[in-house]
Amino acid sequence: MRVAILAHEKFPDRAKTALGVLRYGDYDVVGVLDRESAGKRVNDFVSDVQDAPIYEGMADLETNDVDALLIGIAPIGGGFDESWRDDVRTALEDGCDVISGLHYFLAEDEEFARLAAENDCELWDVRKPPADLTVGDGVADEVDAEVILTVGTDCSVGKMTVSMELARDAREAGYDAAVIPTGQTGIMIEGWGNPIDRVVSDFTAGAVEEMILEKGDEHDYLFVEGQGSIVHPAYSAVTCGILHGSMADKLVLCHDAGREAIHGYESFSLPDLPTYVDLYENLAAPVGGSEVVAGALNTSDLEDDAAAREAIDEYASALDVPATDVVRFDSETVLDELL
Amino acid sequence: MRVAILAHEKFPDRAKTALGVLRYGDYDVVGVLDRESAGKRVNDFVSDVQDAPIYEGMADLETNDVDALLIGIAPIGGGFDESWRDDVRTALEDGCDVISGLHYFLAEDEEFARLAAENDCELWDVRKPPADLTVGDGVADEVDAEVILTVGTDCSVGKMTVSMELARDAREAGYDAAVIPTGQTGIMIEGWGNPIDRVVSDFTAGAVEEMILEKGDEHDYLFVEGQGSIVHPAYSAVTCGILHGSMADKLVLCHDAGREAIHGYESFSLPDLPTYVDLYENLAAPVGGSEVVAGALNTSDLEDDAAAREAIDEYASALDVPATDVVRFDSETVLDELL
Repeated sequence: MRVAILAHEKFPDRAKTALGVLRYGDYDVVGVLDRESAGKRVNDFVSDVQDAPIYEGMADLETNDVDALLIGIAPIGGGFDESWRDDVRTALEDGCDVISGLHYFLAEDEEFARLAAENDCELWDVRKPPADLTVGDGVADEVDAEVILTVGTDCSVGKMTVSMELARDAREAGYDAAVIPTGQTGIMIEGWGNPIDRVVSDFTAGAVEEMILEKGDEHDYLFVEGQGSIVHPAYSAVTCGILHGSMADKLVLCHDAGREAIHGYESFSLPDLPTYVDLYENLAAPVGGSEVVAGALNTSDLEDDAAAREAIDEYASALDVPATDVVRFDSETVLDELL
Repeated sequence: MRVAILAHEKFPDRAKTALGVLRYGDYDVVGVLDRESAGKRVNDFVSDVQDAPIYEGMADLETNDVDALLIGIAPIGGGFDESWRDDVRTALEDGCDVISGLHYFLAEDEEFARLAAENDCELWDVRKPPADLTVGDGVADEVDAEVILTVGTDCSVGKMTVSMELARDAREAGYDAAVIPTGQTGIMIEGWGNPIDRVVSDFTAGAVEEMILEKGDEHDYLFVEGQGSIVHPAYSAVTCGILHGSMADKLVLCHDAGREAIHGYESFSLPDLPTYVDLYENLAAPVGGSEVVAGALNTSDLEDDAAAREAIDEYASALDVPATDVVRFDSETVLDELL
């Protein structure tokens, strides 16, 4: 599938979804839209992802070459920025589908709905949960696959990235591994999935279980993308539902080096690392049982590799399990624990 | 407010909402509708709640005396039973509001919506969450009131009843205490509240916090109605969100005497009681901190009082806190720990 990615004024540093899709998605990216960087290329900014030209807007692309426009950024609050309307309109008029992870559902926008109908295009709001979700049955552990869940000390510590990297490395090592996507970027990358943070709270575990039952007999390993943190004042419910709904066999604890308080909730200090291990394992014990068998540390804020290695060693020793930074270094020691 | 309560073929044993409203609600109940028991009275079945005649249907009541019809039962799945349509239609045609906790929203039923508009009646679907809910801020502990949350070893162990009884007993002892309702029956009893099991999962904690901020400076004690259990394979997300969203000062652990496995999920054994205390307290610690200070045991399955007393003593000793059955015995020892 050939996609253009909208990332106006935010590429690459504040375009997490765009970067995730460029790095892990199975899409042929024919262009990125960023009116501030038009004329440059993706690889001028980021070297380790597929390259593509950057355009001013959708009108500058040869839309015959584009199957879908993918919204690769989100303003705070998840609204639709009206400065993007021309691009979405052009895409639909030229027969392209539009994929969006915004809270604002494009399918409920009168103009977009009409244009999509007229031009036989699909509007895929990935954050809109399917209507047929329901409560869990507590049976995710019945699948053949080994289920591995990334859990975190906080939001935005790299759980999605760790899931994607580990699944990719496992596949490259010859294992049959798939990702169970639970958030908007993961869903866009994989092309399917339930947006767990948007489902009815009673269905949180059930919506994860449903995905595991769907894929669990097709693969040997499932890497479930975790969300939030079990100590997050706002999002712990989602974390708890994913832990119990997935009935994961193994957990990978993800952390951002140097993070000391909950991001955006700075009055809440992070507990120490062994406390996290105990919390996740003790909470999982009555519902299938899970063990933290590896750690993933995000060291992107540390400039030199030696400091990063040292931080990882300290992290591994605090958790008493092998650890790595899956982006900066290889994942071999961690995969050895998982596969 | 004068209400009629619909409970066809289920009063009293399978009409939990009807009984809760009769027992704790501030309504003048002018009649119960149960076509199987028409001609009898509420007190023929249950002696310790307000009495009312039981009718065949809404047409048998003098509807001038009724402000609202309240749906007091729910079939499995929460659908609308078409055999109730005549009663709801009659109520609306005669100018009565209708209050429902069904998953099926009456306001989205074409006939009911039309009749309500024509007759200037309100259709109150208590299970439909307000549209303005959002994520929590982690600030529920800033209110003046002491926040007391009922938590459970499982679903259906009596958390709603314990919250209502303790708040009522506290008020009778001269304290300013209110209930924070989180489920359909609690919301009907109190006449307001957020149905936490139906909110978007990301807003679970926020929807509880919002209620505590609304009432927390008006009362000295808030009794938050808990939901589910932290070890429930399907519903733990809701439990976790309420624990963190309420940032409760004190917890009352509720249990049903003799229960050994999760209701409806019998392959999941209940962990032992000290494990629950540790799980709830350790999970609460990083988000405000809470302590299990009392226990509430539902002994309704034990026939004689001596056996009930013995079960309560064992329960209190396992938890290492005072305990009682708030329905069967008085709540003094428990209230002493809370107020």
